[in-house]
Amino acid sequence: MFGLMQDRPLLISTLLTHATNYHGDREIVSQLPDGTQHRSCWREIGARAQRLAHAMAALGVGDATRVGTLAWNTHRHLELYFGVPGMGAVLHTVNPRLHLDQIAYIIDHAGDEVLCFDLGFVDLVKSLAPRCPKVRHWVALCDAPQRPVINGIEVLDYESLLDRAAPDFRWPSLDERQASSLCYTSGTTGNPKGVLYSHRSTVLHAFASAAADGLGLNARDSVLLVVPLFHVNAWGVPYTSAMVGAKLVLPGSNLSGEAIFRLLVDERCNFTMGVPTVWLGLFDHIERHGAELDLSQVRLDRVVIGGAAAPRALIEKFDRLFGAFAIHAWGMSETSPMGTVGRLLAQHEGLQGAARHDVQCKAGRPLFGVEIEIFDDAGQPLPHDGVAFGELRARGPWVASGYFGLAEPAIDTEGWFSTGDVATIDRDGFIQITDRAKDVIKSGGEWISSIELENIAVGHPAVQEAAVIGVAHRRWQERPLLLVHLKPGAQVRPDELLGWFDGKVATWCKPDDVVIVDALPHTATGKLQKRHLREQFQHHRLPTDTV
Amino acid sequence: MFGLMQDRPLLISTLLTHATNYHGDREIVSQLPDGTQHRSCWREIGARAQRLAHAMAALGVGDATRVGTLAWNTHRHLELYFGVPGMGAVLHTVNPRLHLDQIAYIIDHAGDEVLCFDLGFVDLVKSLAPRCPKVRHWVALCDAPQRPVINGIEVLDYESLLDRAAPDFRWPSLDERQASSLCYTSGTTGNPKGVLYSHRSTVLHAFASAAADGLGLNARDSVLLVVPLFHVNAWGVPYTSAMVGAKLVLPGSNLSGEAIFRLLVDERCNFTMGVPTVWLGLFDHIERHGAELDLSQVRLDRVVIGGAAAPRALIEKFDRLFGAFAIHAWGMSETSPMGTVGRLLAQHEGLQGAARHDVQCKAGRPLFGVEIEIFDDAGQPLPHDGVAFGELRARGPWVASGYFGLAEPAIDTEGWFSTGDVATIDRDGFIQITDRAKDVIKSGGEWISSIELENIAVGHPAVQEAAVIGVAHRRWQERPLLLVHLKPGAQVRPDELLGWFDGKVATWCKPDDVVIVDALPHTATGKLQKRHLREQFQHHRLPTDTV
Repeated sequence: MFGLMQDRPLLISTLLTHATNYHGDREIVSQLPDGTQHRSCWREIGARAQRLAHAMAALGVGDATRVGTLAWNTHRHLELYFGVPGMGAVLHTVNPRLHLDQIAYIIDHAGDEVLCFDLGFVDLVKSLAPRCPKVRHWVALCDAPQRPVINGIEVLDYESLLDRAAPDFRWPSLDERQASSLCYTSGTTGNPKGVLYSHRSTVLHAFASAAADGLGLNARDSVLLVVPLFHVNAWGVPYTSAMVGAKLVLPGSNLSGEAIFRLLVDERCNFTMGVPTVWLGLFDHIERHGAELDLSQVRLDRVVIGGAAAPRALIEKFDRLFGAFAIHAWGMSETSPMGTVGRLLAQHEGLQGAARHDVQCKAGRPLFGVEIEIFDDAGQPLPHDGVAFGELRARGPWVASGYFGLAEPAIDTEGWFSTGDVATIDRDGFIQITDRAKDVIKSGGEWISSIELENIAVGHPAVQEAAVIGVAHRRWQERPLLLVHLKPGAQVRPDELLGWFDGKVATWCKPDDVVIVDALPHTATGKLQKRHLREQFQHHRLPTDTV
Repeated sequence: MFGLMQDRPLLISTLLTHATNYHGDREIVSQLPDGTQHRSCWREIGARAQRLAHAMAALGVGDATRVGTLAWNTHRHLELYFGVPGMGAVLHTVNPRLHLDQIAYIIDHAGDEVLCFDLGFVDLVKSLAPRCPKVRHWVALCDAPQRPVINGIEVLDYESLLDRAAPDFRWPSLDERQASSLCYTSGTTGNPKGVLYSHRSTVLHAFASAAADGLGLNARDSVLLVVPLFHVNAWGVPYTSAMVGAKLVLPGSNLSGEAIFRLLVDERCNFTMGVPTVWLGLFDHIERHGAELDLSQVRLDRVVIGGAAAPRALIEKFDRLFGAFAIHAWGMSETSPMGTVGRLLAQHEGLQGAARHDVQCKAGRPLFGVEIEIFDDAGQPLPHDGVAFGELRARGPWVASGYFGLAEPAIDTEGWFSTGDVATIDRDGFIQITDRAKDVIKSGGEWISSIELENIAVGHPAVQEAAVIGVAHRRWQERPLLLVHLKPGAQVRPDELLGWFDGKVATWCKPDDVVIVDALPHTATGKLQKRHLREQFQHHRLPTDTV
């Protein structure tokens, strides 16, 4: 027997309609790539998204058509965020920082038929156009006079399309399971894979982040949207902001510490979020110009740090300099991305300083809607004791079940998605990521965290950087090998380095050997390339491998 | 094309599982009807709800079976809240304050097969049993030794049922549209009607009230659940509390000012909600015992006032005595009940005292998920200017589409549910209820608010109470008639009373006549019985009715 409640679908268009009707005057501020500032509001975003939907329809965009973007955070990109899914098409945000080959692959694999781009990406589009034959329309996100000329393709301009379009598009009542948006994972191994979000998953994710213990977004917030709109739906915050009527400040392409500081002050932003690198840039700016800056003008009260582990120093600095609470969050493209969020529990009330930072250094706990569990090698769930670590799996209505264009499901028979992270879960549900699953060292049925060993190694005064990888061992299958890059001029004996681990970790977890190297390889985003190291050292013979 | 997100239903059992897994130690405190206190936690509620589900299955409760309750707010009633819907059955909370005839009608109409009752309702059950033949099992919410003996029926006791049941019931994966709970509207006219909630509507409603701008419930809250569990799902707060891991304090049957004050202090409650009457009792207690009470021990920061318009004095007192923010909310059984919630917007930041209370006196604004609109007599939407008033309609996934056992839908072709309230909506979406639709006076195509005229009348020093009703007028169809009950010993001329309205209201809105009466009729819950007055004065000839 069904309940007798109204059958109304959860749609992205309803988020926009709510913002337009009840938060119409709330500002949307854009730093445009040309350096000018554009001031809009939810009512205007709503009206222009309706024109955009008419314009897209006129270009032949229909149900499930993919519309790609190569764009920074501006009001036009925000209009695409609502207008394209609202009409039933799929918004595909492409990361312009990827390699040209990857971008071409992604656009082609997604089957994008329209590609909207900022003027800063004209050269990129010139290279892409011949390699993306499925793209029927190239739309420059600019006014008519700025429309670029590109050999071999016809370029339209966004503002002329909107000018010519009728107002008052009537948003269709779609099935809430319909696809709304597409983001490709950066893919350190193999080809990038597309995560295909639905209207339902997007709206439920927005509910979760509007929760007081989610991001707590509300109508009084002025949000500096530092995280790019091409990173996992900007962590869903554009949609949550519409749901609650927050003010949005879109910083365009300039994410320097100086630019961020100025926007925080000028637009009285109290909420922001981004990856650690961006905040390192902000504090670097503050340190270099401390005397000239009036920190009391910064109203920040909450900062979300995600995308990578938040260094403790960042959490402390946000607290000390601004009195802002750093919310440490964990997630990935496949979790929309909010998986766990670091908010305080009742027993943490009143904690200050270091004791509170201890809690904030953990990677958060699950919100209602996301189930998480850790599993050992045999697929058995592990205890939530903050010690046992295993492969982290997630389940919930905004977690991926598969990838665009791939037949095989991304979940097991119990519905779990394997995140590829290795983590502990404590009694309260707080997780700590201890490793990537592919980097963990599997020694005689026990797991050894490479990250834990690396953190100990870099504590040695002579060590600049360290990597720990597993290498083959006849008795234990795998044992840890420590690779270190020393500080300029530093010298240290290998046995001294191995002795450094005494008392800091269980004996059986200590590295079996150490190699001092001239440099360690990194990916374009600065992560250690352990796959490369594993290949290089695959025949390394450990002194313990004596059988 | 569907998104590739996991297809996981929104179920009440998932709320409980979340609370059990991630907030297991969080306390549930119960004042039992026998005066003792019972301390439990979400983990135990979860375990006992599983036993309850097994026990109900053993009694033959299956999919969609209705299980009724006649019970106060205790941990056992809370277990029923999760265990019964969790297994696929329907929890039917019956208001024990209704007239016996109404209770018997409701239990029979709902087709309840099991009826769970507090020991305080043994006499009521004795009267009901012969009139409720569909009830197969009567379950007393008590331990085995307390089990009452009732002539003619076999009475089971709750604790023995649980003791005999197996643990670890596995919650089924239901369709989220499945019926979960049933509440009958009190029905001032005609028979009570049953609102049938679904798992989906319940979980979405919980998301909305967990939002920072909803009730902002979170893991640090200690919630005094003053509103009865038999009033519209206790405004959904038990479900939201599970979603966020709040502590719940259940006050049993004693809602006196003294009992509430003691629980607020003893359990360090910072959040509570209820109807104005309860708060009048609390402040009455404080005024009478002010000297003995230490108000600084009350940690209240938020109080939800709903069920009736919140008098300004209450909003002021919560602010002045406790520094607590009164959240004025509007809703009804058919809206689950949250329709509008009074939280501040960005432009209200920094408002203090009277200026902030002005905002709080409004009946709130729509959360995302509820659309509202006001319509005139011809069905045309009216402007959101805070002046025009019309019939308030609501739409959304937790708004009723029909009533249990009634064939006709409760919504129009556009999906709107007519609330029966008359309201204004201002530019920001704040509503103010100006009347009930059946009480508004329709004068020559214009509407006159009876409540507005009554509020003016009671401002006259001689007036104790006033009622305004519409009576027939040959030219204007209806015109307002003022009925007043004077203060003891007061005297006033009718023309003086009519003159009191000069300058306070538009000339055409003034009452055409006044009658001084000895008393005004009220319903059992203290509301004016205008239907009775309209019958009594249906032939009253207005002096203006001269054609």
